[in-house]
Amino acid sequence: MELNLNADLGESFGPWKMGDDSALLPIIGSASIACGFHAGDALVMRRTLHAARKTGVSIGAHPSFPDLQGFGRRPMHLAADELQAMILYQLGALVGMAGVEGLAMTHVKPHGALNNMACEDGALALRIAKAVKTFDPALILLAPAGSLLAEAGAQESLRVAGEVFADRAYTDAGTLVPRSQPGAVLNRTDESVAHVMRMLDAGGIVSQSGKRLPVSFHSICVHGDNAHAVEVARAVRAALEKAGCALKPLPQLAALRQPSGA
Amino acid sequence: MELNLNADLGESFGPWKMGDDSALLPIIGSASIACGFHAGDALVMRRTLHAARKTGVSIGAHPSFPDLQGFGRRPMHLAADELQAMILYQLGALVGMAGVEGLAMTHVKPHGALNNMACEDGALALRIAKAVKTFDPALILLAPAGSLLAEAGAQESLRVAGEVFADRAYTDAGTLVPRSQPGAVLNRTDESVAHVMRMLDAGGIVSQSGKRLPVSFHSICVHGDNAHAVEVARAVRAALEKAGCALKPLPQLAALRQPSGA
Amino acid sequence: MELNLNADLGESFGPWKMGDDSALLPIIGSASIACGFHAGDALVMRRTLHAARKTGVSIGAHPSFPDLQGFGRRPMHLAADELQAMILYQLGALVGMAGVEGLAMTHVKPHGALNNMACEDGALALRIAKAVKTFDPALILLAPAGSLLAEAGAQESLRVAGEVFADRAYTDAGTLVPRSQPGAVLNRTDESVAHVMRMLDAGGIVSQSGKRLPVSFHSICVHGDNAHAVEVARAVRAALEKAGCALKPLPQLAALRQPSGA
Amino acid sequence: MELNLNADLGESFGPWKMGDDSALLPIIGSASIACGFHAGDALVMRRTLHAARKTGVSIGAHPSFPDLQGFGRRPMHLAADELQAMILYQLGALVGMAGVEGLAMTHVKPHGALNNMACEDGALALRIAKAVKTFDPALILLAPAGSLLAEAGAQESLRVAGEVFADRAYTDAGTLVPRSQPGAVLNRTDESVAHVMRMLDAGGIVSQSGKRLPVSFHSICVHGDNAHAVEVARAVRAALEKAGCALKPLPQLAALRQPSGA
Repeated sequence: MELNLNADLGESFGPWKMGDDSALLPIIGSASIACGFHAGDALVMRRTLHAARKTGVSIGAHPSFPDLQGFGRRPMHLAADELQAMILYQLGALVGMAGVEGLAMTHVKPHGALNNMACEDGALALRIAKAVKTFDPALILLAPAGSLLAEAGAQESLRVAGEVFADRAYTDAGTLVPRSQPGAVLNRTDESVAHVMRMLDAGGIVSQSGKRLPVSFHSICVHGDNAHAVEVARAVRAALEKAGCALKPLPQLAALRQPSGA
Repeated sequence: MELNLNADLGESFGPWKMGDDSALLPIIGSASIACGFHAGDALVMRRTLHAARKTGVSIGAHPSFPDLQGFGRRPMHLAADELQAMILYQLGALVGMAGVEGLAMTHVKPHGALNNMACEDGALALRIAKAVKTFDPALILLAPAGSLLAEAGAQESLRVAGEVFADRAYTDAGTLVPRSQPGAVLNRTDESVAHVMRMLDAGGIVSQSGKRLPVSFHSICVHGDNAHAVEVARAVRAALEKAGCALKPLPQLAALRQPSGA
Repeated sequence: MELNLNADLGESFGPWKMGDDSALLPIIGSASIACGFHAGDALVMRRTLHAARKTGVSIGAHPSFPDLQGFGRRPMHLAADELQAMILYQLGALVGMAGVEGLAMTHVKPHGALNNMACEDGALALRIAKAVKTFDPALILLAPAGSLLAEAGAQESLRVAGEVFADRAYTDAGTLVPRSQPGAVLNRTDESVAHVMRMLDAGGIVSQSGKRLPVSFHSICVHGDNAHAVEVARAVRAALEKAGCALKPLPQLAALRQPSGA
Repeated sequence: MELNLNADLGESFGPWKMGDDSALLPIIGSASIACGFHAGDALVMRRTLHAARKTGVSIGAHPSFPDLQGFGRRPMHLAADELQAMILYQLGALVGMAGVEGLAMTHVKPHGALNNMACEDGALALRIAKAVKTFDPALILLAPAGSLLAEAGAQESLRVAGEVFADRAYTDAGTLVPRSQPGAVLNRTDESVAHVMRMLDAGGIVSQSGKRLPVSFHSICVHGDNAHAVEVARAVRAALEKAGCALKPLPQLAALRQPSGA
């Protein structure tokens, strides 16, 4: 069986550091890189791309609402043409900088509130999927498994990689338990590993209550800004490999080699 | 004889308008488009590119120091790697958005203080030229004729388009008379036309005092943010055409069809 | 009868101009000044305050969501403590700069989406009213007449000045007709004058359909960013004076000399 | 003998943390708080002020060039009226927010490049001192001992607190050894303690080469963003107390109770 491990990288800004990118890079298969709207200035992007190149991960853009202080986690409501333009701008910036490093951008994963809102708002999801397709129809959309965002990507004939989260609990509806609720975040490494293995066995999302949702997924997200993210990533990787999973960059997954519409 | 008319476009921001881009576009041959650092948000860029496509102008990036409030006119001192990353970021954003409109970015013209400083600081000029070359060695560098920036471009084997300004007076050293001095800006349309024709006749810059500097130029800049920019642009264009000049987009100038180092 | 004319001023930013503040200042009685979050950098604020001092208008803060590019018109969702801190920051900045000009800030009027959302969201309205009161309980809250924001101000024992808009049509519910609907904005000067006089006669809001809503108001807003704002302001002022209204700065209105809770 | 320990606090931003403010607060006597231009958003300021209030430190503003990404460390060149407006804006924001916590702002310490440039540029120093005086002539200017900034403060009859740095080496001219040179930063706690005690004994700055500069100082800065800042602060404080120094907030130092011009 093939799977992908992904993390969000390049989320430092100016003098401020976030995450331990250099420790995560050798563990993961794909990196979603902040594009300057919620984190990651031009120099941080450059350095992140440079570091990514050395490890062979596949890279993607991690576009966001324009909200540095709120880290892109505040819900915003942008006009459709404005949101599209902002996504194109961020993708362009990353593609351009990646090219200088000899890297190709192969996926897009919306960040924070943009991602969360698109998972439950089909119209917003479609706007994102269309922007990605307009930019480059060969891009993979990395979206929460079973979400409206994943659905919108498929509808636009993008290749869609469904992701599940190693450190987040799910509701019976297959959405993330809000951070404000108890148990939303799995703080212990063993919890995360067990959660992932349970989903692997079930072949889908397993909710907090134990409900199984038959949603196929291709990638497991290990959050980069978590205090013990590196430890979790390592443990999840080890467990998956022990279970016989082949861990690969997104574009190398057999399931994603053809457009979803093909 | 062939010449190019260029203007800086897309310098509105959010709710604030600047310049009359739609009136200038049919007059000029090449547009340098703000990339969001001194002006021009993603939506303004998108709309400017869309409008540019309809007129057949060639387009370039107009990268700047990161200084929206100061409109990129404040001298800043950035570390070499940071400046390079910022230039790459801006070029990438414009190339990406241009591609969506089916447009190719063919030149780069630094904006404001970044441009001014590079005209007199060879090390800074070289850093800019190297960043442009790193991004794409086929790009044309649009730089003030006879400046250290133009020289740096040539040194890096970029094609360099020398520009003179229709509405700015020159010192005997071939630099722009600072805006703080009398006569720095030519406010009347007939003055600008006479200034341009004088330089055309002289085959080089003609200073405020009448001194001739034998510096070849390929393009004439008509400032987009000037109150009567459109009138000046029209009058300069008419005068040049009457004098038998063929006005073309930058990449179509015979003089720029080969790399300067070739 | 006493009334106030108010306008939003200081909404230029860096090199970009908005509104004709110097023409409006002699016409209005009170100015709400942008505080840098949606418009108005420090220098614009300084100059606006300086100009305001010469005309004797009363001044207030016009705080906003942090959204320069969107001009504070995009709905945002901020945590309660964050929103409060942002309001305090903006009020502090304006008070401090006003003090240097020998001016006292006497009112607060939220801007754009913050204002609109607070008119229909009682919890948000209360958060704003509490922030204003925390800063200075003597401040007047300038809020749309009959709105939840006006109500929240009264609940917090702030003096509340109800405002109506000279150039905006009202629904039968007393809210503004959304800009996306026909007739939302009264574009002709005579329409605005008639609208204002109708409300003056009715002693309350008169909706698009002619319905009368008995809501007391103290101030009439003439938008500063409207193309013919100055003409409208002049005409409304002339009509009110002809009708025998005494036009005064907000703190001089008899109705506002005591706290609303008194 | 009386002395003050000061640190720069509130330099986190949005999701990014910097420094260990809560550990430093009980050790220092005065805190210079970032005002949002180089660090410290409104919520960070609010929380920093709240924490400061509990410990009894005196507080001051730490205004900066507008340069979040560069952390205010990049040299900038602003027009005189613009710089003054920016300083007033930042002081206003801090005074307003401090007032809500029942705190009075009693000093101003320019940050980063603004501070460094003002130490060697008398005209800039004077502009800063005038801005501070314009805002409130009772404010203490906390400036590097012996610098042109300190001199400018005295010239404007401000009370000036001269500061020396616990963790930075000095040149024979009494300026800081640039960070690019070896030994510029004292990395070991014992080095910092020895450095401070040497200056205490000498009654002035002691340079890297051992030269004594008879410059009076009132305060010792322990940098908040240093990895082991807390340890250094504690050790310096202990050494000073052991040597019989009374450590006090700036406004309680006998030497600063009267204006320098008195």
